[in-house]
Amino acid sequence: MTSRFDVLGIGNAIVDVLARTEDDFLIKYAMHKGSMQLIDEMRAASLYDVMGPTVEISGGSAANTIVGVASLGGRGAFVGKVKDDEFGRTFRHDIRAAGVTFDTPPAARGPATGCCYVLVTPDGERTMNTYLGAAQDLHPDDIDVDMIAAAEITYLEGYLWDPPHAKEAFRKAAAAAHHADRLVALTLSDAFCVDRYRAEFLQLIKTGTVDVVFANERELHSLYQTADFDTAIGALRGDAQLAVITRSEKGCLVVTRQETDAVRAFPVEKVVDATGAGDLFAAGFLVGLSRDASYRDAARLGALAAAEVIGHIGARPQSSLKALAAESGLAV
Amino acid sequence: MTSRFDVLGIGNAIVDVLARTEDDFLIKYAMHKGSMQLIDEMRAASLYDVMGPTVEISGGSAANTIVGVASLGGRGAFVGKVKDDEFGRTFRHDIRAAGVTFDTPPAARGPATGCCYVLVTPDGERTMNTYLGAAQDLHPDDIDVDMIAAAEITYLEGYLWDPPHAKEAFRKAAAAAHHADRLVALTLSDAFCVDRYRAEFLQLIKTGTVDVVFANERELHSLYQTADFDTAIGALRGDAQLAVITRSEKGCLVVTRQETDAVRAFPVEKVVDATGAGDLFAAGFLVGLSRDASYRDAARLGALAAAEVIGHIGARPQSSLKALAAESGLAV
Repeated sequence: MTSRFDVLGIGNAIVDVLARTEDDFLIKYAMHKGSMQLIDEMRAASLYDVMGPTVEISGGSAANTIVGVASLGGRGAFVGKVKDDEFGRTFRHDIRAAGVTFDTPPAARGPATGCCYVLVTPDGERTMNTYLGAAQDLHPDDIDVDMIAAAEITYLEGYLWDPPHAKEAFRKAAAAAHHADRLVALTLSDAFCVDRYRAEFLQLIKTGTVDVVFANERELHSLYQTADFDTAIGALRGDAQLAVITRSEKGCLVVTRQETDAVRAFPVEKVVDATGAGDLFAAGFLVGLSRDASYRDAARLGALAAAEVIGHIGARPQSSLKALAAESGLAV
Repeated sequence: MTSRFDVLGIGNAIVDVLARTEDDFLIKYAMHKGSMQLIDEMRAASLYDVMGPTVEISGGSAANTIVGVASLGGRGAFVGKVKDDEFGRTFRHDIRAAGVTFDTPPAARGPATGCCYVLVTPDGERTMNTYLGAAQDLHPDDIDVDMIAAAEITYLEGYLWDPPHAKEAFRKAAAAAHHADRLVALTLSDAFCVDRYRAEFLQLIKTGTVDVVFANERELHSLYQTADFDTAIGALRGDAQLAVITRSEKGCLVVTRQETDAVRAFPVEKVVDATGAGDLFAAGFLVGLSRDASYRDAARLGALAAAEVIGHIGARPQSSLKALAAESGLAV
């Protein structure tokens, strides 16, 4: 069957509220630097009160990835829940303006559109505090199986395990994709998220519910509860068909049953804001995969997309990734 | 009388919605590059529909100036009208988080918080489309004369002539300031704005309702309806007690009855987004003025603040201007 989409992403629809801060602030408010913490409405309000001046930019991990797919010239679709409020309309505008198909109906009532309060420290690292809001209401009914069947790859974020019914939506989508002989990819999202759902994530990987796994080093260590990298990679090779481990400036490892291939990162002048680096890496790799590129070329595309997004504030590309790829001699 | 504030600004409270675009877009939608156009709710909706992905950052010309004052270590206050909605709360958060006193009660009903749709072209120039929204409802009752009397300088934007009752608020504030022996400053805001209210602006200057005038070259030419710069400067010297004409990379001219003094711009690596350059220049100059610096030193502070803000997206400083000034050997 011909496809309508290269990559369809399902994730929490979130608007990022970013502020620069110092490391002391993270310590004072008991945040784990570089990771994501869920917060309730009260904590969100009191955190916002003490944050510095902010910038609002549409975000959400899988949503960022799909915007990256579109920027690379891929056909992207996104499924996620906003409310019909100002931030919800902003989210919808931004993802559609990026060329992504986004038709999930907004919630008419209930909590406001989800926000992620992102603290960016001088080293460019981001520490995230997520109020899920309307994203809590993503439901299996929001999954259109025909749309899933029409996508080469369905991409799911581990964060979907947090809202109450989104994991059912996840499973429904994965089943529909495999029923149509399509690929299913998963990002482990965050080391603490892995800690919350380790057994379930391992089961998704071992049973082949997901075909491709993305993780960074911290998520990998958390998944296998080991501080030894090689032990973790060995375990992953036994469990996953295809996995990509991102290692910041050290590049990434593409891990298959047969081999482990190291691919370099793209040089970056200055890490301004690391928000979205993993999301955009996934975008490049998935576009490569959907176009039958080699894993190595797909990883190079991922590295290129990640390098663009960490050079500025916000987790979505500001330049055409397709043009950047062409300049770097990478075919898309 | 001792003062509570160095500078109190009154202006339209606006959230900027910024998108990058090409020059073709401006032509297609009949926009005057580099200037501000007022739009109604319908035009705002249809423009937003065709704009690319956006970033939301609190803005508003006088509000940006007062945030710059605070960033330079000055005591700033702002008066302006938002609605009690998401963007209104964002505006309030951001200006307070910057250290500015902002107590104007939000509108409970009526139009949404004002937005400025800013199109940033590859040369860094910004073209603005403003939906005034709740800013239309600024009223003389929003002016607390005791607060005005407690500010060294009251700073007013020419844009206040657009909403129906804001000019009355302007006049009330100017009278209260002069009654307390304080200074009143005005920015001409925009060449088209000058075109709409030329006679009234000239009267404000000639009658001494304002003591200090800020304008860029286009606004100056519009004020005196002449293409000849020297003719315009000559006319301005006859009318104004103190005026500063900003000339982008050419620096500025400080114009008094006695002399015209040229002050250099600060070097800028790349103009990323010119939004706020004039606003931040005014911030530096006003802080200098409130601290009894020489006009030349005040203009240097203005140039420094302008250089910071055009180096990134958004019209508010991302670094401490006080620290930057210290690094450059400028006393604040």
